Amino acid sequence: MWVIWDGWRNTEVLCFVLVAGRKMSPKITTELLKQLRQVMKNPRYVQEPVQAYIVPSGDAHQSEYIAPCDCRRAFISGFDGSAGTAIVTEQHAAMWTDGRYFLQAAHQMDSNWTLMKMGLKDTPTQEDWLVSVLPEGSKVGVDPFIIPADQWKRMSKALRSAGHDLVPVKENLIDTIWTDCPQRPCKPLITLDLSYTGVSWRDKIIALRSKMAERKVMWFVVTALDEVAWLFNLRGSDVEYNPVFFAYAVIGMNTIRLFIDGDRMTDPAVREHLQLDSTLEPEFKIQVMPYGSILSELQAVGAGLSPKEKVWLSDKASYALTEAIPKAYRYLTPYTPICIAKAVKNAAETEGMRRAHIKDAVALCELFNWLEKEVPKGTVTEIVAADKAEEFRSQQKDFVELSFATISSTGPNGAIIHYKPVPETNRTLSVNEIYLLDSGAQYKDGTTDVTRTMHFGTPSAYEKECFTYVLKGHIAVSAAIFPNGTKGHLLDSFARSALWDCGLDYLHGTGHGVGSFLNVHEGPCGISYKTFADEPLEAGMIVSDEPGYYEDGSFGIRIENVVLVIPAETKYNFKNRGSLTFEPLTLVPIQTKMIDVNLLTEKECNWVNEYHQKCREVVGAELERQGRHEALRWLLRETEPLTRVQ
Amino acid sequence: MWVIWDGWRNTEVLCFVLVAGRKMSPKITTELLKQLRQVMKNPRYVQEPVQAYIVPSGDAHQSEYIAPCDCRRAFISGFDGSAGTAIVTEQHAAMWTDGRYFLQAAHQMDSNWTLMKMGLKDTPTQEDWLVSVLPEGSKVGVDPFIIPADQWKRMSKALRSAGHDLVPVKENLIDTIWTDCPQRPCKPLITLDLSYTGVSWRDKIIALRSKMAERKVMWFVVTALDEVAWLFNLRGSDVEYNPVFFAYAVIGMNTIRLFIDGDRMTDPAVREHLQLDSTLEPEFKIQVMPYGSILSELQAVGAGLSPKEKVWLSDKASYALTEAIPKAYRYLTPYTPICIAKAVKNAAETEGMRRAHIKDAVALCELFNWLEKEVPKGTVTEIVAADKAEEFRSQQKDFVELSFATISSTGPNGAIIHYKPVPETNRTLSVNEIYLLDSGAQYKDGTTDVTRTMHFGTPSAYEKECFTYVLKGHIAVSAAIFPNGTKGHLLDSFARSALWDCGLDYLHGTGHGVGSFLNVHEGPCGISYKTFADEPLEAGMIVSDEPGYYEDGSFGIRIENVVLVIPAETKYNFKNRGSLTFEPLTLVPIQTKMIDVNLLTEKECNWVNEYHQKCREVVGAELERQGRHEALRWLLRETEPLTRVQ
Repeated sequence: MWVIWDGWRNTEVLCFVLVAGRKMSPKITTELLKQLRQVMKNPRYVQEPVQAYIVPSGDAHQSEYIAPCDCRRAFISGFDGSAGTAIVTEQHAAMWTDGRYFLQAAHQMDSNWTLMKMGLKDTPTQEDWLVSVLPEGSKVGVDPFIIPADQWKRMSKALRSAGHDLVPVKENLIDTIWTDCPQRPCKPLITLDLSYTGVSWRDKIIALRSKMAERKVMWFVVTALDEVAWLFNLRGSDVEYNPVFFAYAVIGMNTIRLFIDGDRMTDPAVREHLQLDSTLEPEFKIQVMPYGSILSELQAVGAGLSPKEKVWLSDKASYALTEAIPKAYRYLTPYTPICIAKAVKNAAETEGMRRAHIKDAVALCELFNWLEKEVPKGTVTEIVAADKAEEFRSQQKDFVELSFATISSTGPNGAIIHYKPVPETNRTLSVNEIYLLDSGAQYKDGTTDVTRTMHFGTPSAYEKECFTYVLKGHIAVSAAIFPNGTKGHLLDSFARSALWDCGLDYLHGTGHGVGSFLNVHEGPCGISYKTFADEPLEAGMIVSDEPGYYEDGSFGIRIENVVLVIPAETKYNFKNRGSLTFEPLTLVPIQTKMIDVNLLTEKECNWVNEYHQKCREVVGAELERQGRHEALRWLLRETEPLTRVQ
Repeated sequence: MWVIWDGWRNTEVLCFVLVAGRKMSPKITTELLKQLRQVMKNPRYVQEPVQAYIVPSGDAHQSEYIAPCDCRRAFISGFDGSAGTAIVTEQHAAMWTDGRYFLQAAHQMDSNWTLMKMGLKDTPTQEDWLVSVLPEGSKVGVDPFIIPADQWKRMSKALRSAGHDLVPVKENLIDTIWTDCPQRPCKPLITLDLSYTGVSWRDKIIALRSKMAERKVMWFVVTALDEVAWLFNLRGSDVEYNPVFFAYAVIGMNTIRLFIDGDRMTDPAVREHLQLDSTLEPEFKIQVMPYGSILSELQAVGAGLSPKEKVWLSDKASYALTEAIPKAYRYLTPYTPICIAKAVKNAAETEGMRRAHIKDAVALCELFNWLEKEVPKGTVTEIVAADKAEEFRSQQKDFVELSFATISSTGPNGAIIHYKPVPETNRTLSVNEIYLLDSGAQYKDGTTDVTRTMHFGTPSAYEKECFTYVLKGHIAVSAAIFPNGTKGHLLDSFARSALWDCGLDYLHGTGHGVGSFLNVHEGPCGISYKTFADEPLEAGMIVSDEPGYYEDGSFGIRIENVVLVIPAETKYNFKNRGSLTFEPLTLVPIQTKMIDVNLLTEKECNWVNEYHQKCREVVGAELERQGRHEALRWLLRETEPLTRVQ
């Protein structure tokens, strides 16, 4: 799935809500704002009254996807897009969001709110706006658990230089007025054995401690949910699409503390997995503590540090947790050693991802075969197609859930990059329009994410031309050979070159890291023209390759495979650096009907034929094994070799 | 000329001194260090004794090339590489430099000095080292005119957090002991009329003031030498290879102050050019002031500012000048409006650059024709060839000087990217080795920089193979079409793709901005895998395109053209952004003998043939006009079309 994703810095990623044509009535917030303004002055909640209160998107773990109980900004404003920051003062209520959401925010918010259109020249920054509206010497409150430390620093500095103060408000003020706030999810855990993870949690702790020793740190604080899950070889379902659970961990050189709520630790399978009842060396004994005690425990760690004892935290960790460690003892990095280790998949994970992608391909062969028959009848809508895709996937072994909301879009809806069909926009698939399906699933052995663009009638020459440029870009990345140590952003232009030659382009990045039965988006690698601080690609990393082309009001094209970074054999080996390339894990036919073969080079044509040959062999065998003969026939037909006219 | 050049941040750029095989005896610095340590405590020069003194490379203008009087670090240490920082304490003397200079520095410095090898894991940073050796509460001195403001900030912060102080020492302490320090050059100025510059200095001031008004700043301080030269349409020769002169300027909304020394303003041509004796509107009246009065004048400006009156400075300006303006009044940007305006060449400048490149090509056709005859005799050394190149260039109209020290290298010397032949390394050209010539000149109408790699005998299949990959990379950049607004670093991988496919690469960037009868390296654009903050490419910008391949101890290959960014015609025009491409200004044949035609695609082969056709037409006509018939015959032979075997 593509996303407007500039790295792992912000949660402004996914837009599941479509604007065009959707009727939305604004949420009436007069009463809520009145209540909020009261608690802003209520000594029960604030030491001193705050003249402004900031409500960011996001949760205490800087997650991309958040649980309903963390949708506080949506609660107070009505605006439920994925990106936005609300600020409420005694007189004003303002919402900052970006271009994707101008229309939606305008529809969802009532007249109490001023929309601040980010990216427009005249829109003030939050800091500038606060400075312009606040009375002298004001206090601006924010939940220190929700704001990342680096954002706090920037905001605090700007306010201080104008004579105001950013202050942490311990109790979340939205929660105090959110009477029907959903409970924080606390779902059962899944344990993953070595056949899925390849490495025991114990060995992961050993490796982590060795990294800590290298950097001379004594403690490591795990704040990202997928990092906790990966470290302990556990999965959960507290957040939709992401198999994670609410928890923190603090790893010392001789201690392991896991902060987690509920009766999840009473599950015998979990107890055994974590060896909670075994006699273990003390340094591998896990102390289980309440989720809510992380701050006080960390403060105790902070208070007990001797000189030179450093504590390692992500620089994206919350202000609250970062502040628990005295400044001189903090060791902050943009990517934690867990983030980096997690990105490099081991043999068991890679094999799991392969299996997951084969099953996923089986489901999509079934789907496309079904669509081919059903679309001409005029009864298949975008929602029906998305549901059918989920149905076929759910028939596969170890299916858990979808890995993101299916983007099922036809005709002009395909040009809306962040589209998700809803009843108001739901379009019927036809033989006259291009259909774009970007979908994926969580299987116990791996996470998938694939986009195919199909035509169920006869595509126009122009549609084929555009599709073929996108395909050329897809192949240019997939077949690229590059030195070890290359960062993904250096490959982004390969994906665009064929489009650029004709004056075309697409306004999103080309690829993101993919987790192994974990988040469909993960750091620290990616392929984008935006040069966030991506880490170099290395063998075992898994990313998506998904160039596209979108014509507003008309159609959208995207071709996405998940690809594995593998060593490449080359004729020479400069400075003994070694080379890398990609192996597609996704094995779903690329519709040859959409290809203008004459625009392909011989090498590109061979790539398509070899790719399709592999789909036939690998997915064909699985379709055969599952007795899905009709889908197998569809696969064989769709993977007939292309022939170029010389 | 390529350079290890990560942007315009540092002066660590050019290495004119070769190490391999060169005998160097260290400079004896015992007495000098003793003297320096004395002045470090001498109340005549320092308010309080300083326990350490930092001697950076560089001059007060953060120039890449510096005048002999600014080579203070070389004076105190003996090490004269282009990059290095010396720090002298009461007990120690240490030199930080990078991998290019480890050997050279070790040879040139005596045992008083400790070499700090930057880039190695165990080498401490300057700050860390200072903290480890200094007694508590030390003062560290530095010349505030030499250290850029941002470096000061970083260093000062690190020292302060360890209980030390970075202090500005007004008088340069090296100058106090450098008894035979050369005088600061003060050479006559050259005035450039509209036929060269296209825009009068008056109109440049008007444009600058409009940019100032846009950003709401009242003053602009011009600190870079090439920016002063460009703004006033003047050139000088105070620094070798760079037609600049020592000066500052301070532009107000109604005033123009030029800080410049010597009797240069008595030259009637200069007086007339600057209209010093005319009755002008007061806002265009230039006040000429002594070079040394910049600080006090700027302090006076700083003291007289009303609220909201900002002063615009480059963030690379010296600490001294930056501090002259109170912090609240500073407006700092990485690229000044002059830097950006200067990069986009107007029609007169572009035409001048075209003319300069045609003349340069004439000189090189003469040279290569001459080399072809002389090399087999075994009498042509690298130095002889470099001198001959200069001789031919100097015969061309409006020739001023070289634009950098000629890199004339054969065989293994070609693999040393920053090679300059000196008697100790001077190799004789032969029919058995590849010859690499990277050279350029300053003409009154433009600056050139071209690299050609030639074989005067029969190249091996492997040499041809490598050359052809480099050529493919050169063409990939030169023929690239990309959207308006694209930054140069997004094109860098195009230059490497063919090399990468075979496991090869080169360890330098692909291109740098080129001035118009100004510095051969200029910001703010470039093409590099290192993503410094380059500005987007736009039509009228001029950059080099110079991929290479180097095999240590064996040979070096580089193919460099200077190219002009021009609008590209494309079939479609996404979002009406428009597209760009490059037009080669350099028109010197690429040796077809070195090309393995079968490795070229049809498109690449056509590119070479069309390029050579243009060389024939344009340079051929000029050779004809200049009556250089033998060189013309050489050109015609060297530009015979390639034919691919289908």
